[in-house]
Amino acid sequence: MSKFEVPYKIYLDEAEIPKSWYNVRADMKNKPAPLIHPGTLQPLKFEDMQPIFCDELIRQELDNETQYIPIPEPVYNFYKMYRPSPLTHAEFLEKALDTPAHIFYKFEGNNTSGSHKLNSAIAQAYYAKEQGLKGVTTETGAGQWGTALSMACAYFGLDCKVFMVKVSYEQKPFRREVMRTYGASVTPSPSMDTAIGRKILEDHPGTTGSLGCAISEAVEVATSTPGYRYVLGSVLNQVLLHQSVIGLETKAACDKYGIKPDVIIGCAGGGSNLGGLIAPFMGEKLRGEADYRIIAVEPASCPSFTRGKFAYDFCDTGMVCPLAKMYTLGSGFIPAPNHAGGLRYHGMSSTLSQLYHDGLMEATSVPQTKVFEAAEYFARCEGILPAPESSHAIRVAIDEALKCKETGEEKTIVFGLTGTGYFDMVAYEKFHDGKMEDYIPTDEELAVSISKLPVVD
Amino acid sequence: MSKFEVPYKIYLDEAEIPKSWYNVRADMKNKPAPLIHPGTLQPLKFEDMQPIFCDELIRQELDNETQYIPIPEPVYNFYKMYRPSPLTHAEFLEKALDTPAHIFYKFEGNNTSGSHKLNSAIAQAYYAKEQGLKGVTTETGAGQWGTALSMACAYFGLDCKVFMVKVSYEQKPFRREVMRTYGASVTPSPSMDTAIGRKILEDHPGTTGSLGCAISEAVEVATSTPGYRYVLGSVLNQVLLHQSVIGLETKAACDKYGIKPDVIIGCAGGGSNLGGLIAPFMGEKLRGEADYRIIAVEPASCPSFTRGKFAYDFCDTGMVCPLAKMYTLGSGFIPAPNHAGGLRYHGMSSTLSQLYHDGLMEATSVPQTKVFEAAEYFARCEGILPAPESSHAIRVAIDEALKCKETGEEKTIVFGLTGTGYFDMVAYEKFHDGKMEDYIPTDEELAVSISKLPVVD
Repeated sequence: MSKFEVPYKIYLDEAEIPKSWYNVRADMKNKPAPLIHPGTLQPLKFEDMQPIFCDELIRQELDNETQYIPIPEPVYNFYKMYRPSPLTHAEFLEKALDTPAHIFYKFEGNNTSGSHKLNSAIAQAYYAKEQGLKGVTTETGAGQWGTALSMACAYFGLDCKVFMVKVSYEQKPFRREVMRTYGASVTPSPSMDTAIGRKILEDHPGTTGSLGCAISEAVEVATSTPGYRYVLGSVLNQVLLHQSVIGLETKAACDKYGIKPDVIIGCAGGGSNLGGLIAPFMGEKLRGEADYRIIAVEPASCPSFTRGKFAYDFCDTGMVCPLAKMYTLGSGFIPAPNHAGGLRYHGMSSTLSQLYHDGLMEATSVPQTKVFEAAEYFARCEGILPAPESSHAIRVAIDEALKCKETGEEKTIVFGLTGTGYFDMVAYEKFHDGKMEDYIPTDEELAVSISKLPVVD
Repeated sequence: MSKFEVPYKIYLDEAEIPKSWYNVRADMKNKPAPLIHPGTLQPLKFEDMQPIFCDELIRQELDNETQYIPIPEPVYNFYKMYRPSPLTHAEFLEKALDTPAHIFYKFEGNNTSGSHKLNSAIAQAYYAKEQGLKGVTTETGAGQWGTALSMACAYFGLDCKVFMVKVSYEQKPFRREVMRTYGASVTPSPSMDTAIGRKILEDHPGTTGSLGCAISEAVEVATSTPGYRYVLGSVLNQVLLHQSVIGLETKAACDKYGIKPDVIIGCAGGGSNLGGLIAPFMGEKLRGEADYRIIAVEPASCPSFTRGKFAYDFCDTGMVCPLAKMYTLGSGFIPAPNHAGGLRYHGMSSTLSQLYHDGLMEATSVPQTKVFEAAEYFARCEGILPAPESSHAIRVAIDEALKCKETGEEKTIVFGLTGTGYFDMVAYEKFHDGKMEDYIPTDEELAVSISKLPVVD
């Protein structure tokens, strides 16, 4: 018998969708380091960013002070299409594990993009439209961000050009058609369409691409096409701001039912979901109002938190983007073809990097076969077929619950289930056929990649 | 400004999930004709069906009298995983169409099977388990039913053997992997694994299969393997009974918010969704308590209601199953490779056939290019990427709303959005590339097929 008298799925009312985003930076004593200009190495000013980003999004990027930023009404109206998302009491999983732990997950997959990415996509598309732009460019790894942006652009009537990491483009052919349904154009990256794409292909023929490469291409097109700007689905402060809607709803649902999390777990690629999920909880922690154990989970094949260096680095492989101070494996690091495409990024959100550096959260890494074991187990217990990315959090949530079984502790575990795996069946097939491998970079590989970091400090 | 003060998505509370299914047959003056034995032409008795179906499901199949049948607790617990499903006020679609009509849709796609099929799958798996069986066999067209049954069998620890219509198996390779994730075995039909499969392949080499063929194969395996029974995702009375949970929730949500539907629209293949959606509304109509216009929408390529004959026919191509009195195109009719795999069935639920015959509902058919136009339009307005099957209902809902625009009538339209199209991207790709064709059988073709109906009456 659970100590929580809660429905299996907690749906807040429509009126309980947060009216403002929460900006965790306002409560940080040590602010995230500013983006710096790759030429001058000086902190980027508003004007420096204008050729790349939408004006209002730059303001949000630079704003380390405002605690709450109102959600514009058209964005709020769009949120109604798929929010509030349910906070689910994983009672079937608890029973299967026979654990005294209480497990809850915030499920962001109940929308056509299949993930939380829509939360920021619609905000970014809105500000682009408000500015009178014609369109936006972006990159996508697993395809979730590209799909989300396509949906958002269709809603506001904006053009949308997506560069999709080649390995995902090939593994997920149907993602392209979803994006086309929403009117977007999709190009596999690296491509011959851009100068940087051609250079990358020359230097690394046969590369399966990376988020870093695709970012470079999208930025090149945005800055060279009038009326276009570049938008990004993770890493940036503005994205974590928009994604705070996940955490705010989670917190509201917890408060409503008296659920007090001991452990909060999220997968981490660039940090968009984790940063959003933990935002209000981290805020309480920063303000000394409460304490939570917070765990970032990353793939063993791309372990920026756990094996990277906290230093300034380029956000992209092509080194055309600004430099961010973050945990990084080096912008030249091209991760092995892990199936969690959305987590194949060499760096990590500056905000989360600072919080991790300050000891406010933990991080761990897991190999993909263990992740898919957890994914299948979860699917059979809880019905939902999870995305490989999300399954990193499932893996660690299960491991924590099993520890509770050993110790008898009744911990309350909350994790972020960022999305569904319907477009990841090639990966599941490999797993079922016993053909999935675990790629873990050697110390030497990482040392080489990290040794090439730009000299800034 | 809408006359309805309702949230965009109406979620009932968990406690409002119906506790009983509603059996519309209890309120029908003209009961659906009984299944008859293919050899004796006598109405099937309980014992006749026992080798094929689970005992309790036979009782439900034969029960034309009990109005409400309690939902067993384990089934109810499973329903909590994905029910109540939302009744959504399509305000973005209304705005885009600029119609005075009020449009609502009951969305059954928010679960991993991607459709309403789970409602009956979990009930059938439960009764099989209760009977101490080892496993079940079935067929699947679009793959939705097979996925649903796999999930249900995984939950109760039953073996699950799925025969998947070959054209769908090829168009939807990833469906197979979802079913495997839930531990099912999947065979493309017709196959060489069964006597009837071998015969069909001999008579029609290169056939892309049909639901009728796949049913024959699944029945053959069930009746020849100890501890197995056959289960079916549509057509049967028991399935409509389980699916009444859709209509009961819809009715409860309508009543809660004072929504009085004028028109209720559902796609119809074998009738599972339509029969479930309309059940309580049809009940009121049968009891003279209210009136509703009810429209069944079928593909022009497989028009059993609109161009079929109301007569006894075999439920399967192999003619091993009982005969049902229904609107049918003939069990030998193999529909053209339309992309709404779930609607490619030669017959129609006996219950719905009787109601249609008695003038209690209408039917219409639509060609698939028009269906995909509606699907894409809907996806861009309402965010959800719909299944081709569901999009038949969307097409007619849009057409009805556009008629309201002409006449200025403020009709309230409720339609069933049975599922999502994430596994139908091959079809969307054809549509985007302008390569989709409309297949409409000629009068001659249908006449030939219908002329071969068994002589019963």
